[in-house]
Amino acid sequence: MGAYKNLKKIVGKENYYDDEAHLQAYCYDATRERFKPHCVVFPRNEDDVCKILKYCNNNAISVIPRGAGSGFTGGALPSNGGVVLAMERYFNNILEIDKKNMIVRVQPGVVNKHLQDAVEKEGLFYPPDPASQDYSTIGGNVSENAGGMRAAKYGITKDYVMAIRAVLPNGNIIRAGKKTIKDVAGYNIAGILIASEGTLAVITEITLKLITKPKFKKSAMGIFNTIDDAMNAVYKTMSSGITPVAMEFLDNLSIRAVESKFNKGLPINAGAILITEVDGNLNEEITYQLSKIEQKFKENGCIEFKIAKDDKEAADIWFARRNASQSISIYGKKKLNEDITVPRSKLPELLKEIDRIGKKYGFKIPCFGHTGDGNVHTNVMVENLEDIDKGYEAIAEIFKVAVDLEGTLSGEHGIGLSKAPFMSIAFSQEEMELFRNIKQAFDPNNILNPGKMGL
Amino acid sequence: MGAYKNLKKIVGKENYYDDEAHLQAYCYDATRERFKPHCVVFPRNEDDVCKILKYCNNNAISVIPRGAGSGFTGGALPSNGGVVLAMERYFNNILEIDKKNMIVRVQPGVVNKHLQDAVEKEGLFYPPDPASQDYSTIGGNVSENAGGMRAAKYGITKDYVMAIRAVLPNGNIIRAGKKTIKDVAGYNIAGILIASEGTLAVITEITLKLITKPKFKKSAMGIFNTIDDAMNAVYKTMSSGITPVAMEFLDNLSIRAVESKFNKGLPINAGAILITEVDGNLNEEITYQLSKIEQKFKENGCIEFKIAKDDKEAADIWFARRNASQSISIYGKKKLNEDITVPRSKLPELLKEIDRIGKKYGFKIPCFGHTGDGNVHTNVMVENLEDIDKGYEAIAEIFKVAVDLEGTLSGEHGIGLSKAPFMSIAFSQEEMELFRNIKQAFDPNNILNPGKMGL
Repeated sequence: MGAYKNLKKIVGKENYYDDEAHLQAYCYDATRERFKPHCVVFPRNEDDVCKILKYCNNNAISVIPRGAGSGFTGGALPSNGGVVLAMERYFNNILEIDKKNMIVRVQPGVVNKHLQDAVEKEGLFYPPDPASQDYSTIGGNVSENAGGMRAAKYGITKDYVMAIRAVLPNGNIIRAGKKTIKDVAGYNIAGILIASEGTLAVITEITLKLITKPKFKKSAMGIFNTIDDAMNAVYKTMSSGITPVAMEFLDNLSIRAVESKFNKGLPINAGAILITEVDGNLNEEITYQLSKIEQKFKENGCIEFKIAKDDKEAADIWFARRNASQSISIYGKKKLNEDITVPRSKLPELLKEIDRIGKKYGFKIPCFGHTGDGNVHTNVMVENLEDIDKGYEAIAEIFKVAVDLEGTLSGEHGIGLSKAPFMSIAFSQEEMELFRNIKQAFDPNNILNPGKMGL
Repeated sequence: MGAYKNLKKIVGKENYYDDEAHLQAYCYDATRERFKPHCVVFPRNEDDVCKILKYCNNNAISVIPRGAGSGFTGGALPSNGGVVLAMERYFNNILEIDKKNMIVRVQPGVVNKHLQDAVEKEGLFYPPDPASQDYSTIGGNVSENAGGMRAAKYGITKDYVMAIRAVLPNGNIIRAGKKTIKDVAGYNIAGILIASEGTLAVITEITLKLITKPKFKKSAMGIFNTIDDAMNAVYKTMSSGITPVAMEFLDNLSIRAVESKFNKGLPINAGAILITEVDGNLNEEITYQLSKIEQKFKENGCIEFKIAKDDKEAADIWFARRNASQSISIYGKKKLNEDITVPRSKLPELLKEIDRIGKKYGFKIPCFGHTGDGNVHTNVMVENLEDIDKGYEAIAEIFKVAVDLEGTLSGEHGIGLSKAPFMSIAFSQEEMELFRNIKQAFDPNNILNPGKMGL
């Protein structure tokens, strides 16, 4: 432990912990897996980060960068021990809101919602809104390339990252990207740091693009007899020339789960509901978009289309979607939740296959999520923990289906530890070799978040 | 030469050339620099590309991938000899237009405009429109991350690339990205291949996102007494809550150049003109956006605001912008054209500095370009060729100014050979070292486009 204790000299004893309480507090994330680190360190500034990394690099000590620890795939877990580099204590400042250029510069430990609120006060808008927005940090959002409800129109975290400042394992500081919309000088380092899950460098500063906040928005819900109708409605609406902010869905199991828990009068016999939102600077845009959506929905089997008249009705419409994740726990003790994504036109087939797999393995698999992006949260619900291996078999089969439909293992959550065993479903040996070469280019001694992403 | 001639066995003699005529035809690009390759090879398919790269990798032969050779920075020039890998003959097919998912899959040799036309026939829209759109290829556009007039609203090439299929120098085929809006599994290889200028891999297939084409558009022009007024109008308009498709400018020298050549009745005493376009699916959106732009322009010194009534008037408005580049040749035999980019609010200061530098060195420096992105085409016009070194000194000073204003050496054209000597203005030794490590991760024998990007 002597090697670890030396870190105290860098950050001061008030920022170094190896007592049991701290090791317990930093041993888990949203996956509920547990791995104890050797110590937890809170760097006070970038210089601390440089010194810590240099020291650990020279002493072959693993460093696990951590934001809020709210990830769904174990990306922030010290699965091989080492130093948890906790950015929450000192790296939580919004450094600059540049209204003239519509840009914000933040430290990685800033909570997503705090950022959203701060820029909205200035009439600006940061669209990425992962479900974890109330506690997840921008550093984590960038490291996993977080999505959210508004991605159908506004894209995901990567679409807002202009520049990243980071420290390499050797202690070198790099600046990647610029405060400019365009920049084609040098390799796109910021691009590869996004979604790299803390395996390449420690991010110390992030520059994000903002947009102006649209003046009007409205929500609506479509009820469908069958999930097949709903999935067809999604891709036909999205390719019809309008771009809703959100196009979310709940399947029958998810609807029933929310209803059984909250008694909201949801249509429990519906095959699926679609929840959508549109926005714009003119009321005419709202009317136009909603009428097009209603038309496309009804052409595809929508039996009822409700437009929210006010904020309260909008909140009611969104209630089911926002509470789906917690409600489905009625179907099993252990939830194996994944976030596969397919091209939108493949959604009908994907949902059929998931139904088939659920029946084959005997699990309920409630689904909901961001159909506007083809991103489906699939939840294999395991009631008896002795069935867990069978649960993972079902997951593997779902992954194979997604990849066969030209989709991906993960739309938002990343690979981390949880999906690492499944990387060979999506990537060839040659592709994995290239990933390892890139890891090596940044981190030759493999000290940063080792063992993640199947590397 | 024996080592080169073996390539004939791979592609057949009809696709291998080392005669003087071909070496001359493939020795230049839009920079007018000339470097003769050892041979020119036309791969017929991906398998040929694999075999060529493997052979060259094993024999330490340089390979220079080439699309249309229309680049402005020498990215496709065989500056150290080697094999020009010309993709134009066989890799020019649109493989799939997927209307359901609004995606197009193309080979790299497809000309940008051919792609635009093909998808517009299907009611779809590929926004990136570099000035070279009539001849530049998508492979080149991706390799340089090309921009265009519509970038202010619609972004640049990188915003449309969903997936890339490519061959590594060792002959391995990799697929990067997916046909999905979201994909966070594995490192973002597609992201780093974009703008990598053919130095990392040979692209064999590109999957691009499309959008639906807006129904209405309208152009307008604002005339300003001073360039300072115009530049202030740009950033104040762009941050006011509307997003024009384009926000282009011409300075006084550019206006006079076009007028002297074409006699169009342009305002030759104006400090600058701004040319803008808005679009939307509703006429109300057009009216709203133009009225906001007019208001912001007039608040910032616009003395005349003209809205095009029809396509002919729109074409007239755009004529000056489209013909600026060729017209400014009246100011000097040799044009040193750069494409620096700064945060929009720094445009007023940038243009003042360029004026100062022009006076200091005694060159006319007409400027025009994509102010909506902060991207300014600066043209140092050298009349006497013995002054060329002084011209490059002026360029170096302009680069320094751009970087000091938090900008970049290049918004669209890339680094290639021309800007390689200036990389140290923008990047630290540590950053250059990281670039070299990444190059090494893909191309350990440095066979792909060696000597480019200052690597």
